[in-house]
Amino acid sequence: MNKFAVSVKFTAQDGKCDELAQILLEAAEMTKEVEGCDLYIVHLAENEADTIWVNEIWRNEEAHAASLELESTIMMIQRAKPLIAGVEQIRLIPVGGKGFIK
Amino acid sequence: MNKFAVSVKFTAQDGKCDELAQILLEAAEMTKEVEGCDLYIVHLAENEADTIWVNEIWRNEEAHAASLELESTIMMIQRAKPLIAGVEQIRLIPVGGKGFIK
Repeated sequence: MNKFAVSVKFTAQDGKCDELAQILLEAAEMTKEVEGCDLYIVHLAENEADTIWVNEIWRNEEAHAASLELESTIMMIQRAKPLIAGVEQIRLIPVGGKGFIK
Repeated sequence: MNKFAVSVKFTAQDGKCDELAQILLEAAEMTKEVEGCDLYIVHLAENEADTIWVNEIWRNEEAHAASLELESTIMMIQRAKPLIAGVEQIRLIPVGGKGFIK
């Protein structure tokens, strides 16, 4: 069963980038208790205003899908939705490297 | 001094993706000895043939730049160059999350 990774590009509504980043950092904090989440790092984009990238790695796609069913995640998404102007996902297969959990 | 992160999208020449991924995995192995490199993970793209993403996080931009001066890196780049059809970089500022080294 392959590990599952996804890089998610969020475009925030005007002036809502910091507030959205804060919620995503809370989500990252929550993943520390979520089994199957290896990596969940929030980044601002250096050259693109109102843009946040979250790079995630999960034990497998099922673990990722299960995390989206958690009540805490659902509430988090509700809070974040009004702040989001766009979302793009790049589905990846992590194959190794420094910081990669086998 | 902010941490420095970069997501690098490599497009391999036709049929050269696996060979390029192997070289990037060697580079990742090398970064395990490189001070200042927090994360260097190689991914294949699920929905894009011949595409490799490397997500990197460095203590700061200077540490990243210094790594590019290493002889081992220069030799690695020489080996990879003929296999690469395109490179795109997304410069990021990591702000926190699971797997993030403060």
